[in-house]
Amino acid sequence: MTSLDITSPESPVRLTAVAAPDQPDVTPALEELYRGFEQELLVPLWTEIGDLMPAHPRSRAVPHLWKWDNLVALADRAGHIVPVGRGGERRAIALANPSLGGRPFATPTLWAAIQYLMPGEDAPEHRHTQHAFRFVVEGSGVWTVVGGDAVPMNRGDFLPQAGWNWHAHHNASDRPMAWIDGLDIPFQYVTEAQFFEFGRDEISEEERVTPTHSRSERLWAHPGLRPLGIQHATPGSPLLAYKWEHTDRALADQLELEKQGYAGTVEPGHAAVRYSDPTDGSDVLPTIRAELHRVTRGAETAPVRETGSSVYQVFDGSGTVTVGDTTWSVTRGDLFVVPSWEPFSCRSEAGASDSDSGALDLFRFSDAPVFEALRLDRTSKDPR
Amino acid sequence: MTSLDITSPESPVRLTAVAAPDQPDVTPALEELYRGFEQELLVPLWTEIGDLMPAHPRSRAVPHLWKWDNLVALADRAGHIVPVGRGGERRAIALANPSLGGRPFATPTLWAAIQYLMPGEDAPEHRHTQHAFRFVVEGSGVWTVVGGDAVPMNRGDFLPQAGWNWHAHHNASDRPMAWIDGLDIPFQYVTEAQFFEFGRDEISEEERVTPTHSRSERLWAHPGLRPLGIQHATPGSPLLAYKWEHTDRALADQLELEKQGYAGTVEPGHAAVRYSDPTDGSDVLPTIRAELHRVTRGAETAPVRETGSSVYQVFDGSGTVTVGDTTWSVTRGDLFVVPSWEPFSCRSEAGASDSDSGALDLFRFSDAPVFEALRLDRTSKDPR
Amino acid sequence: MTSLDITSPESPVRLTAVAAPDQPDVTPALEELYRGFEQELLVPLWTEIGDLMPAHPRSRAVPHLWKWDNLVALADRAGHIVPVGRGGERRAIALANPSLGGRPFATPTLWAAIQYLMPGEDAPEHRHTQHAFRFVVEGSGVWTVVGGDAVPMNRGDFLPQAGWNWHAHHNASDRPMAWIDGLDIPFQYVTEAQFFEFGRDEISEEERVTPTHSRSERLWAHPGLRPLGIQHATPGSPLLAYKWEHTDRALADQLELEKQGYAGTVEPGHAAVRYSDPTDGSDVLPTIRAELHRVTRGAETAPVRETGSSVYQVFDGSGTVTVGDTTWSVTRGDLFVVPSWEPFSCRSEAGASDSDSGALDLFRFSDAPVFEALRLDRTSKDPR
Amino acid sequence: MTSLDITSPESPVRLTAVAAPDQPDVTPALEELYRGFEQELLVPLWTEIGDLMPAHPRSRAVPHLWKWDNLVALADRAGHIVPVGRGGERRAIALANPSLGGRPFATPTLWAAIQYLMPGEDAPEHRHTQHAFRFVVEGSGVWTVVGGDAVPMNRGDFLPQAGWNWHAHHNASDRPMAWIDGLDIPFQYVTEAQFFEFGRDEISEEERVTPTHSRSERLWAHPGLRPLGIQHATPGSPLLAYKWEHTDRALADQLELEKQGYAGTVEPGHAAVRYSDPTDGSDVLPTIRAELHRVTRGAETAPVRETGSSVYQVFDGSGTVTVGDTTWSVTRGDLFVVPSWEPFSCRSEAGASDSDSGALDLFRFSDAPVFEALRLDRTSKDPR
Repeated sequence: MTSLDITSPESPVRLTAVAAPDQPDVTPALEELYRGFEQELLVPLWTEIGDLMPAHPRSRAVPHLWKWDNLVALADRAGHIVPVGRGGERRAIALANPSLGGRPFATPTLWAAIQYLMPGEDAPEHRHTQHAFRFVVEGSGVWTVVGGDAVPMNRGDFLPQAGWNWHAHHNASDRPMAWIDGLDIPFQYVTEAQFFEFGRDEISEEERVTPTHSRSERLWAHPGLRPLGIQHATPGSPLLAYKWEHTDRALADQLELEKQGYAGTVEPGHAAVRYSDPTDGSDVLPTIRAELHRVTRGAETAPVRETGSSVYQVFDGSGTVTVGDTTWSVTRGDLFVVPSWEPFSCRSEAGASDSDSGALDLFRFSDAPVFEALRLDRTSKDPR
Repeated sequence: MTSLDITSPESPVRLTAVAAPDQPDVTPALEELYRGFEQELLVPLWTEIGDLMPAHPRSRAVPHLWKWDNLVALADRAGHIVPVGRGGERRAIALANPSLGGRPFATPTLWAAIQYLMPGEDAPEHRHTQHAFRFVVEGSGVWTVVGGDAVPMNRGDFLPQAGWNWHAHHNASDRPMAWIDGLDIPFQYVTEAQFFEFGRDEISEEERVTPTHSRSERLWAHPGLRPLGIQHATPGSPLLAYKWEHTDRALADQLELEKQGYAGTVEPGHAAVRYSDPTDGSDVLPTIRAELHRVTRGAETAPVRETGSSVYQVFDGSGTVTVGDTTWSVTRGDLFVVPSWEPFSCRSEAGASDSDSGALDLFRFSDAPVFEALRLDRTSKDPR
Repeated sequence: MTSLDITSPESPVRLTAVAAPDQPDVTPALEELYRGFEQELLVPLWTEIGDLMPAHPRSRAVPHLWKWDNLVALADRAGHIVPVGRGGERRAIALANPSLGGRPFATPTLWAAIQYLMPGEDAPEHRHTQHAFRFVVEGSGVWTVVGGDAVPMNRGDFLPQAGWNWHAHHNASDRPMAWIDGLDIPFQYVTEAQFFEFGRDEISEEERVTPTHSRSERLWAHPGLRPLGIQHATPGSPLLAYKWEHTDRALADQLELEKQGYAGTVEPGHAAVRYSDPTDGSDVLPTIRAELHRVTRGAETAPVRETGSSVYQVFDGSGTVTVGDTTWSVTRGDLFVVPSWEPFSCRSEAGASDSDSGALDLFRFSDAPVFEALRLDRTSKDPR
Repeated sequence: MTSLDITSPESPVRLTAVAAPDQPDVTPALEELYRGFEQELLVPLWTEIGDLMPAHPRSRAVPHLWKWDNLVALADRAGHIVPVGRGGERRAIALANPSLGGRPFATPTLWAAIQYLMPGEDAPEHRHTQHAFRFVVEGSGVWTVVGGDAVPMNRGDFLPQAGWNWHAHHNASDRPMAWIDGLDIPFQYVTEAQFFEFGRDEISEEERVTPTHSRSERLWAHPGLRPLGIQHATPGSPLLAYKWEHTDRALADQLELEKQGYAGTVEPGHAAVRYSDPTDGSDVLPTIRAELHRVTRGAETAPVRETGSSVYQVFDGSGTVTVGDTTWSVTRGDLFVVPSWEPFSCRSEAGASDSDSGALDLFRFSDAPVFEALRLDRTSKDPR
């Protein structure tokens, strides 16, 4: 059939006529039509609709668990053989969801990595439009310098880092330190809105001498109080560190209120806070939501489905988490992903090495602000 | 002239034809026209334009100072002879701007009063659409019970009380206590949007046993952290107390940043915070803005004019304040008003009885949210 | 009693101790206290609460009706004896609510006036922060020149005029013309945010040659279409004329949809449109809402109470309107006010001089945007 | 080397150590580390940063042109051999950007397809969360039935179709009809927020009898006028058709204003309107912006770069368009894509078959609302 000749050999479009109830009859005319489509770089909806327009989200990502001990061991090995410096920029090692083609994407929209800095090391200054944060599950001694403001990092601290701010890291201690980075790299990889610039190669001596609180905290970490002398017009929170002492107390207060019979928790035994921008109460970053959840010993959360994906890290305690059909035992530092529309629940259970409090503390970040801004958010408590 | 006969005797309109460059010639025809206007309840623009449409705001209010000692003395006398209870509702005594006709209006939009409660006294529960707050310049021992949540009141604390919330006061101590109330009573008197309901005559025993922190603070006073389990849909801040310790530290932090060469203060020696709603960063009340300003010993603020009016109370220190052409020496507790578009500045000066810090701390509240919501706000640093 | 001596003779505060259930006992001590209050310019809440904090709005304004024929007759007389020019600025004659002390205030927040321009007359250019509009119940031939844009005025046209835009009027015809002006003068008189500037004394020849559509309409009166080349950042609608042909068709379309069984009208036989800002769908002016209501022959609207006040003008047809306990027969041009929280309803009835269509068309403007922005709006269909 | 043994054979991660200035030295230790990463499903940033965090957007998509005649010819062939009905749902044939792997994605976020309906054919009712629109470059006779509202489609009409509204198509004429569909399918494919439901198999007889205007237009297509009786709470515009007569007039008006010396156009000879939601002035769809640009004969637009991608269709006229380094001659119906950050400009030139007006009319749709909502928008007139 000469019609096949018209097919440009290099067209990336490849159409296969298949015999199926919903598909047109497989005939020479159809084959010729498909070759025409290929040549003109066209794809019909009727062969793709099942994949592109499913009845409900069926994520290309899968639930997966990464054990913290393994991550730290590999990061430490990298610390001894991979230098950190201009070009590579960061000793960050990202989670690659097993069903996203080996790309460093924890979910289709979220990047999660362990970053590791050796004693005395600096990660050089740069800025990028990707929104980022750090969360510290253990250790201390590193300072993130943001626009010249040195922000200490200690266990439990959450540090949002809105896009296009200059930042560098400096390990001021005599021990290596690990923490996690979360970014919207996969999302911006799709939307193609990324800009990147190199900054100074070295931070100043002054930036190495660091107070207990960043300047941002001295301006913005007073509850319900705004500084009148400061304008804040750029996207994202001007508060660069949410210290653990505040988060811990907020969660404890909710549980105490519950004990006294008052509203406060999300559900019995389940306290939670959302990190928010003090200038408008919104999420700390335009594309990323971050929360800390505390589930008391023996309590269990009700399964919830949401559009959009999340990454969790166990901050403290032990328990079991269920994502879709998968259940894992988890303990401090472990990371796992919840793809879009997969039901998620968890249960706090005593582990051998746990502290007395026995609560399961889970740090969570997600792409929810994207969905809410575009009115694509949907939630269901229906277990299906 | 028979035309006068058509004037309805009871018309409240009274028009006087005057000979003036901008006015029509005084003739019998004009007089007849004016009688017709009166009968039909009409008033021409040309006789009123100077008053109604001035080149810039010329407030009907005047700057005025009330000395705290005098207010407390009168309030205490009232405490001994005027009962507090249902009907009168509150032992509140309001500032009456001398040029607003003897009405209890500090400015055309704002109400400011000293409230006074004797030991063991209760002010009964009610609610109203008027937005309110309390600010405590001295003393302690009173609890405001808001929707069943007991909120302690101590020196320096600011308690917003958005409209339509049930509230009562209870003096749990063995001493009288005074504080100031700020409300938008004059504004709502004009807009005529007021609703009022009586609540319970007695608060419960449980509400008399009070923790150091209200439930609202345990939910909302953690910097940058929102409780996930709580919806807040009503107007105004859900945080019912802004404790002095936070305000004081925020101001001290700004001044320390200034000393270190960083941005933070409004101008040299002048730190300031705005009380804000943690859910959206906006003003604590839909119609009232509240701030605390600290001016260091010897510092002076630049004159500023703003549309809208303010009431200030000296929280600490001594100094001089200038409103328009008037300058006063002020000290702890003194209250004064700044009418619309009058330039305001202040200077901190050591007083005999001042503490060592020597700063002048000024609490301020204003109607600025009204002006901003309606796009009527204007500010000038031009001294005229 | 010597205590009276302390009363400053010029204090505007006058307090009278009265014997009443809710009031403190009338004793010499109370009298002395009240004299002290007067001297210190203080007023207690307990003598004022009934007036200031009523159970529901009790407007100081009363319902009132002005007959159009009387207004036009007086305006015409003014046209012959009162010049229009710099200083008086406008031949505008305002409605004075009978219970607002003879001030030119239709309601506590709204100004409504008939403006009258003789053939060939110009009203000089000025600008002010007060928000304004024109509505034309009859006639044509006047052009309002706004920032150099000549806007024709014809029967049924609505012309919003947001604050601080230069504007002048020019009667290009050989007949006098009357229309109504609505402004927020009383509201801004209270908030004291008014600025005013004189403009050119004469408009240019070019501005006297006028097209059928203003430039603003050519940019903004295309349904759902925004011009990409125009930024609009000032408050209020950039569309300077809402022509009657569009309003009429929109109302007719709603009634036709109702006839066909579809949603569209407010209630049976009652169609209504709100004039809106095409850039954001909000009210045309920050402080004023404007609407056109059409009630078909024989139909009746359900009583509604709202916080805030309205002024109505009958645009066409005849009927009866009920405001609180008052019912009037109304016909073309008549103006009446609905004070805050007074129930309003109307009924369309054939009048002798009516056209065949028989609908009652009511133009309405109100202060609703103020109430909504400040979250003071409340509506009730409860007839009480 | 035994370390390779730990590599799980099925890991999708594949890391290759390469010798390069920015990369760690290729050593056995590095190889072992990479095998460890692969086994743990980890990818380091330092091998990916150039691709993931470029200095500026480098789109994976390429500029490409599809000729309308070829599309129509293939669609017509499909009309004769591919039935339209439940399952396949639509005879829609999508543009596949040549560098996006043969997927039916015009750009990384946008879907563009030609849809084709034979005389008398119905496309069955369904709804989905993907936001959609139709734009008609030629023909008439098809009605889109949206929630029971029949919307006629004629040359130049733009029909937004916000997500989750029921819709079907019906060709009421005796001729085939083609139009283009735009959707956010690729974007929602990434964010994984898609829901889909089948509706009725047949539309009612009543829905086949159609007026010249949809009900939505009778409610919402009156400039600046909102129906008071209708609540609109769902995302996207309630106006279901933007008729060509309005768009054409709006563009003509802008050019006439320019000719008269007034502001109105984007740049000389370049008029443009944005389709907007009349309820709030925002884009017609939460994720899609749509515009119509008119460039007069001989005029040329200045190159602009924007984050985000666009698809254009030539609605009328002829000319040349330049995207990045590529320039094409285009004529009626032709479609082309502008990837993120590629500079775009166009020039209107007379074509043999053009009408006298000679203007080049370009319909454009883009993903700009996504970028603006998430504060990722950036524009540059720098030609680089």
